[in-house]
Amino acid sequence: MPTPYRIDGLQYANWSPKIFEEMAQGGVHAVHVTIAYHETFREMVLQIEAWNRWFERFPERIMMGRTAADIDTAKATGRTAIFFGFQNPSPIEDDIGLIEICHTLGARFMQLSYNNQSFLATGCYEAEDPGITRFGKQAVAEMNRVGLVVDMSHSAERSTLEAIDISSRPIAITHANPHWWHPALRNKSDEVLRALTGRGGMLGFSVYPHHLKDGSNCTRESFCAMIAECAARYGAANIGIGTDLCQDQPDTVVEWMRVGRWSKQLDYGEGSADNPGFPPMPQWFNDNRDFDSLEEGLREVGMNAEEIAGVMGGNWYRFFEQNFVALSPS
Amino acid sequence: MPTPYRIDGLQYANWSPKIFEEMAQGGVHAVHVTIAYHETFREMVLQIEAWNRWFERFPERIMMGRTAADIDTAKATGRTAIFFGFQNPSPIEDDIGLIEICHTLGARFMQLSYNNQSFLATGCYEAEDPGITRFGKQAVAEMNRVGLVVDMSHSAERSTLEAIDISSRPIAITHANPHWWHPALRNKSDEVLRALTGRGGMLGFSVYPHHLKDGSNCTRESFCAMIAECAARYGAANIGIGTDLCQDQPDTVVEWMRVGRWSKQLDYGEGSADNPGFPPMPQWFNDNRDFDSLEEGLREVGMNAEEIAGVMGGNWYRFFEQNFVALSPS
Repeated sequence: MPTPYRIDGLQYANWSPKIFEEMAQGGVHAVHVTIAYHETFREMVLQIEAWNRWFERFPERIMMGRTAADIDTAKATGRTAIFFGFQNPSPIEDDIGLIEICHTLGARFMQLSYNNQSFLATGCYEAEDPGITRFGKQAVAEMNRVGLVVDMSHSAERSTLEAIDISSRPIAITHANPHWWHPALRNKSDEVLRALTGRGGMLGFSVYPHHLKDGSNCTRESFCAMIAECAARYGAANIGIGTDLCQDQPDTVVEWMRVGRWSKQLDYGEGSADNPGFPPMPQWFNDNRDFDSLEEGLREVGMNAEEIAGVMGGNWYRFFEQNFVALSPS
Repeated sequence: MPTPYRIDGLQYANWSPKIFEEMAQGGVHAVHVTIAYHETFREMVLQIEAWNRWFERFPERIMMGRTAADIDTAKATGRTAIFFGFQNPSPIEDDIGLIEICHTLGARFMQLSYNNQSFLATGCYEAEDPGITRFGKQAVAEMNRVGLVVDMSHSAERSTLEAIDISSRPIAITHANPHWWHPALRNKSDEVLRALTGRGGMLGFSVYPHHLKDGSNCTRESFCAMIAECAARYGAANIGIGTDLCQDQPDTVVEWMRVGRWSKQLDYGEGSADNPGFPPMPQWFNDNRDFDSLEEGLREVGMNAEEIAGVMGGNWYRFFEQNFVALSPS
């Protein structure tokens, strides 16, 4: 039997050879990495340029991922395939034509909003959520056409439900947990998760402490029991991992994520004035080498081998295979 | 015997369904099209967006070309493969990382300069030519690495000779004629053409009247006899067609080509105050339907079938096949 896939649905680390090495040690075949929070198109291109330098410098560790088949290449050659995504539609600016351009450049996920209102949809920190905008409806159709996956991880309830409904292809919530497990603003309602998975969409479970029950003190058992419950409620084929690992980032980066250029004041997002930076990770998940531990936790809560293989990567593999290619004819 | 390839090494028409239809009527399997004269990176991306709309609207006529194999797909399905190129390095701005980005977006040729000094090289209208610049040497190496072909059609003598010498892969002069046939500033010296073709580079013959002996009154026989002489001097395998067809363009476009944003005064380039616009085409080549006539002209001057097949497309096919892919490892 071949090794199952191991795929992470979201990371935004302070990339380094050390982390690429840890990906190999953790047997991680593919990672969806964030390359934009508030960046304009040109600024996002600079992020791809930086990745191109990593690819050129460490060809034995990492490779650019464009299709699911690239994951097989990475797996066969002991590397990790890197798939690009945006946490905000800022890189497409006000220009629908940039959606295909971004896909050509390798983008495979785009959130319709980060925490705030965007041109396309509403973020989960806004007081009001008027739903998907006029441009948003056009953008979703274009994203569907070219194979750029709609991600609603940071979006508000109504916008998320509308995106699930409007999109002709399954969408993703790459990194969040159920609200019924931990009622954070960023975690998703049962209604959203049923609608998402009912349409073939994927939920990636986050280990970012603000998304965890008991925060940094969350136990592996609690996290894995929540996953098992999600498998029962939403189907074991529609869930995966999306750690939201922000390894080695300085706190200035979480400020950029939260405040961008939209405010002159600090916004603490999921943090607070007395806890403004990145929170400490739970002791059972610190970096890419801890996927073994996560898998062990899933076994301990009684999930079977097939379910675990799906959660650890098989489900993302299938989702990537079906949703990263353009609809024909194109 | 399969139909030989028919490939045009440069066009910059005012694109329309009519022209795409004429490409089909002329049996043209591939065209290298200009998408930048003075455009910044972002402006060049807008040109690709416009092409993406053409590809979406006319999938039965045209398709994006990335590799030589795409020409076979186009040929087999009665379409024309469109390959992108820049007549100036303006889209890479001051950023070597944009070279790979532009290649990913589909660019396959880039002139190191248009008529003026660029960051990389000197144009043929400058009084002095100090040769390839510091950035230029770095850029050529990066272009060689990713598979973006160096084109010196508008560059000055010394810069062109240095580019041929510095480049580790063959370069192209996609659209020009020999200076010994018609001594225009844009036409190339025998020394340049010997150096170019001696290193496996390609010359594409232009039918733009300012590059022709007797201008708009140039005869097909004179043009084809010049090609036959070039085959004898430089090898029949190192030459092709690069019409420089600027069909249906208003004269404002030739102004943009010549003046860009670099001058507040008119510059007439190869024209003059009493002939400021696009010159009338020679009567035997007006649009893509006239390749048959060109081929007939080559037969009349005594070239054999194999040589003619090479000039009409086979040579460009081989050149595209060898030079559009990245050097491994990448």
